[in-house]
Amino acid sequence: SLKVKHSDKSLIFADLSPEEYKSVRDYMWAQKDLHISHAATAKPSENFIFLIDLLLPKKEDALSYLDGRGAKPPREASVVVFYGAQGYLKEYVVGLLPGQLKHRDVTQEKYKAATLPFTARPVTTGEYVQLFTLTDQVFKNIEKPLRESFGYIPKKRGLLPYEGMPRGVQVGDRKTWISFFRDYSGMYIHPVGFEILIHHQSSNSSDWTVDRVLYNGQYFDSIEDFKNKYEAGSVKKIVFKEIPNFASLKPRNKPSGIGPQQYYLQGKRFSVRNNEVVYLNWSFAFGLSSLTGMRVFDIRFKGERIVYELSVQEAMSVYGSLTPGMMLTKFLDSSIGIGRFAHELVRGIDCPHHATYVDTYRYIDTNVTLRSRNSICVFEHDMGRPLRRHFSDFFHNGFGGMANSALIIRTITAIGNYDYIWDFIFYQSGSVEAKVHATGYISSSYKIDGSLEYGHQVAENVLGNIHTHFINFKVDLDILGVKNVFQTKDMVFNEVILPWMPSRKAKIPKLVEHQIMNEKEAAMKYNTKTPRYLHIASNSTNRWGHQRSYRLQVFSFAGDHLPETEPEEKSMSWARYKVAITKHKDEEQSSSSLYSQNYMWAPYVDFSKYIEDNETINNEDLVAWVTVGFLHIPHAEDIPNTVTVGNGGGVILRPHNYFDEDPSINSPDGIYFSPG
Amino acid sequence: SLKVKHSDKSLIFADLSPEEYKSVRDYMWAQKDLHISHAATAKPSENFIFLIDLLLPKKEDALSYLDGRGAKPPREASVVVFYGAQGYLKEYVVGLLPGQLKHRDVTQEKYKAATLPFTARPVTTGEYVQLFTLTDQVFKNIEKPLRESFGYIPKKRGLLPYEGMPRGVQVGDRKTWISFFRDYSGMYIHPVGFEILIHHQSSNSSDWTVDRVLYNGQYFDSIEDFKNKYEAGSVKKIVFKEIPNFASLKPRNKPSGIGPQQYYLQGKRFSVRNNEVVYLNWSFAFGLSSLTGMRVFDIRFKGERIVYELSVQEAMSVYGSLTPGMMLTKFLDSSIGIGRFAHELVRGIDCPHHATYVDTYRYIDTNVTLRSRNSICVFEHDMGRPLRRHFSDFFHNGFGGMANSALIIRTITAIGNYDYIWDFIFYQSGSVEAKVHATGYISSSYKIDGSLEYGHQVAENVLGNIHTHFINFKVDLDILGVKNVFQTKDMVFNEVILPWMPSRKAKIPKLVEHQIMNEKEAAMKYNTKTPRYLHIASNSTNRWGHQRSYRLQVFSFAGDHLPETEPEEKSMSWARYKVAITKHKDEEQSSSSLYSQNYMWAPYVDFSKYIEDNETINNEDLVAWVTVGFLHIPHAEDIPNTVTVGNGGGVILRPHNYFDEDPSINSPDGIYFSPG
Ligand SMILES: [Ca+2]
Ligand SMILES: [Ca+2]
Ligand SMILES: [Ca+2]
Ligand SMILES: [Ca+2]
Ligand SMILES: [Cu+2]
Ligand SMILES: [Cu+2]
Repeated sequence: SLKVKHSDKSLIFADLSPEEYKSVRDYMWAQKDLHISHAATAKPSENFIFLIDLLLPKKEDALSYLDGRGAKPPREASVVVFYGAQGYLKEYVVGLLPGQLKHRDVTQEKYKAATLPFTARPVTTGEYVQLFTLTDQVFKNIEKPLRESFGYIPKKRGLLPYEGMPRGVQVGDRKTWISFFRDYSGMYIHPVGFEILIHHQSSNSSDWTVDRVLYNGQYFDSIEDFKNKYEAGSVKKIVFKEIPNFASLKPRNKPSGIGPQQYYLQGKRFSVRNNEVVYLNWSFAFGLSSLTGMRVFDIRFKGERIVYELSVQEAMSVYGSLTPGMMLTKFLDSSIGIGRFAHELVRGIDCPHHATYVDTYRYIDTNVTLRSRNSICVFEHDMGRPLRRHFSDFFHNGFGGMANSALIIRTITAIGNYDYIWDFIFYQSGSVEAKVHATGYISSSYKIDGSLEYGHQVAENVLGNIHTHFINFKVDLDILGVKNVFQTKDMVFNEVILPWMPSRKAKIPKLVEHQIMNEKEAAMKYNTKTPRYLHIASNSTNRWGHQRSYRLQVFSFAGDHLPETEPEEKSMSWARYKVAITKHKDEEQSSSSLYSQNYMWAPYVDFSKYIEDNETINNEDLVAWVTVGFLHIPHAEDIPNTVTVGNGGGVILRPHNYFDEDPSINSPDGIYFSPG
Repeated sequence: SLKVKHSDKSLIFADLSPEEYKSVRDYMWAQKDLHISHAATAKPSENFIFLIDLLLPKKEDALSYLDGRGAKPPREASVVVFYGAQGYLKEYVVGLLPGQLKHRDVTQEKYKAATLPFTARPVTTGEYVQLFTLTDQVFKNIEKPLRESFGYIPKKRGLLPYEGMPRGVQVGDRKTWISFFRDYSGMYIHPVGFEILIHHQSSNSSDWTVDRVLYNGQYFDSIEDFKNKYEAGSVKKIVFKEIPNFASLKPRNKPSGIGPQQYYLQGKRFSVRNNEVVYLNWSFAFGLSSLTGMRVFDIRFKGERIVYELSVQEAMSVYGSLTPGMMLTKFLDSSIGIGRFAHELVRGIDCPHHATYVDTYRYIDTNVTLRSRNSICVFEHDMGRPLRRHFSDFFHNGFGGMANSALIIRTITAIGNYDYIWDFIFYQSGSVEAKVHATGYISSSYKIDGSLEYGHQVAENVLGNIHTHFINFKVDLDILGVKNVFQTKDMVFNEVILPWMPSRKAKIPKLVEHQIMNEKEAAMKYNTKTPRYLHIASNSTNRWGHQRSYRLQVFSFAGDHLPETEPEEKSMSWARYKVAITKHKDEEQSSSSLYSQNYMWAPYVDFSKYIEDNETINNEDLVAWVTVGFLHIPHAEDIPNTVTVGNGGGVILRPHNYFDEDPSINSPDGIYFSPG
């Protein structure tokens, strides 16, 4: 039942292979003048390859190749090196793969600076090792209070750390509030009420200091200060209590049943080869960026490209809290790495048993390539509701319809407490949907007086902190080529005179269409009224004379975005817009950056700048940036885990006069019968 | 795996049985003074039982009985009689069932009028018979133009009618624009360009007249006028052309495959007995009102009632058009009868093969009880995405999660062109979802100059008319009893001084909660900013001290509601509000009425009146009225049928501090494992 064939051309979008990672790493290690450490967990003071990832081909090159007009684009790697010895960061392009490699420093070209500041980098495993060494020393110094308060016993019952971000309040800061949690599975909802502020800006960890301590809501200027006051009895003490682990995900009852299971009675109707999926009329390439996560390219229906790129860009959360560990917290997950945390999917839970599972490989924050077994799944699913149906008993009796079987490609990324489920769904009616749902553990803090202004209590002494979720998708639709326009459609009530009764007027719905000509006007902010239908359209028309288009239908329950006056806002300015349309540029590949989290106040990518030049979007290659999200006010039912029901968002790309009729009429699943 | 048991108490909400319909009908027929016709299709001039349906028990009586405090409430029928001979309508209550029946005229009590005006009634089959007799006469008179223009051949190739509503512009009007369509399956998208205005106010059909004619965009004062001008050659003629039936739902290709199928490996985990479903921790009663459609009552989780009533109330559409057949059209489906058109569900398309199917019975617009075989289905479905899951490789390695298997109860109602799919979904996390999706045929009109202001061309000469869909649900949550409050929660960015750095301020999210005290303030209009979280709450608290509540999360893409200044608006005033909360009253059972369609200008139910008395909603029995919808700008892909993807809306009722933790932790579907 596959109507389209596989092609190896998808490989230009394929993640680097283990061999490619290794050859790039070995090549970089061989550059003696760069003095790169070979350690798995290099110290911040060493030079270290943080990341090797595919450098996406330039779009024009890729299109030439895909459309048979040009050669295969060069295959290159993007390499990020943290120069601890020099105190700066650099990025390289290394290629061509396979073969004799060369490297090119692209820092200047990409960032208009010869080097990037050292504090812009994410915290590496090497730096965490040193942070944990420091906290161990701290714990040794205050073992008694920790034992009395939290049952801390060295090497037997620990306290687990959870960091707030950003790490300070201004450029150059690297001061992290670490909150401590019980040493339980699901630690994230077991805060103990102890937080410390570590100043770890120096690349030499012996310079690091504990600048502030919070214990049971009370602040102390240092560990010594806390220790002295604790011993002097001038501290309101927390008394350790053993509690059962309410965060445990262990079933309380013996599993007694099994829910409905899906089978492919006639085998799979899709095929996965290399990084390409074909399914009935659909085909697309896929990949998993270590930083930004799942992405698909060159989505075609009946061989005709509809989307060049559909990709996750960023996942952001802004928290409210009375206590410092979460008070300023604004997570930008792509700086930690979203795709990097795409772990093995569990059959029968994460995806159906009969899904096709794909391994992914990554090179990030260590010295070897790591495999994530079965970290992408592809399956066809009965969505549980007919795609279309009509029953008639007037005049002509009959029934026509079809089940809604669709193809889903999924990854799930678990970044610390939260698990995001990423789905791209391909429908037989020509629609593509990008969806994200949140599950896993909420973040929490120890409840003190006044905490309830920032959330609800969800367990003994535990506050579930109010927060927002914002997710950004890049949607590079190419409708019959790259030259497209941005159209809006909506209704308005219009007063008309009734033609058969001119004395009478009535207000009736009327279609209102606009073409939007420039980027600023096409940036649809979340708090404004936007037209209900948003279209990327070609100037070519369908059989009925209408511009062929795809409509973007956004599902979102977003909370308020951080006020633009806040100094951190520019690092997440994409979240201002429900939909923003820009003119495509290879150098505007992403709405966020690896450095956005730790250099929030002067980010290297400020999405709003893509719009600021207000380019024309009339007959240009257009990219839609779609933000979805939801406000999360945690409640008791978030314990132990947030459920996916109602906690998601997404965008459906729907054909709108793209075809001459619904393409599902040609589906092998269509059924028709009439009586007798 | 059923955790709760069946109870016969659900029967108080059961639809009337065939025996009950018959005994009520026979009783009414036996009332000689009422002079009721026994004909299946009585003429408008005769007296006729239009409807027999269950009279719902008074809520207080029902609760007393359900909760073991009182006797079984009386079982009674609601009977609607059209008195053609007298020229008015009346409603009766007939009971008690079973046994010696009595009838009581409730018109005055219900409507503050001894009788209802005759023009308020829906058009019966008897009236349609006379309308078609009239159109046949008209056709005979203009056979030649109809043949030349539309290929009309008496008894061989007809023209099929489609009515516009309302039937006029003011109270008392009964003048219907009828548009004609090709005699094809899927006629709704085959307009021919011929429309006539029939004045059929009199109960004597010999008084009826054709008041206006539209042919190819040109108006004529009468059939004679049209005929004369057509023959005189002063009409721009349409020339008949045979065309293939692009509206056909017959598959173009031989069905070649079969999509994924679901099985219950260990049998069904739910049970349907009488009108009750039990599923794991859930139980509820269900019924199908001939007018308003699907409804469930007494929804309980672990035996605790959460919802007293969750029901469809109304489905409304407002159209825009240049031509009169659809120019004023505002459909109110409950006046035609939603549940009445719940036909047999098709296994494998409408619901899975292995669903449990239930028959329904109705007595409406004829003289016998009709059975709708398999018109309700109940099934468990794997929703295709985990309900919850968490993977951890930090500190504690492990995986816990569960598939999202949920129970769905569904009807599909096909009212002429459109098919609405009605789902109530019960999740193991304690959420209930009410969802509606639209499919079937769009309404269309013959394209003339200027038509494109009201939609898109979707086929040769066919305009798909712009329109709105609005659906109203009644959600009578009872959280730990009937005395509840209405709470809103949202976020606001609040500026705080950083406690550890008092020189610095930051804006952080803060929780904002309100209790809304009266009905007017609780009426959340669609075009205003409303709080993001809406809760029906008890004053009882959960283990953590928070008021136990359910949250209403509304999914909607509604277009603009008809301006309140329009004379028809009061008949659909429920659509002003995304959510409105009223104090429960038995006499405010529904937001709409059987008479709303044909008496739009002075409706017997104007929902906004429920709010106008602005009662207190503090510690009262609260009812939430939820409106969802979408703007539909038809496009080529609506041919032949609108697909369900993206064309729906609904509301999720989510526990929010109702429990002390997520109840799905006790599900038999939970899985946990840790390495080694
Ligand atoms: Ca630009
Ligand atoms: Ca594009
Ligand atoms: Ca009231
Ligand atoms: Ca209630
Ligand atoms: Cu959250
Ligand atoms: Cu529609």
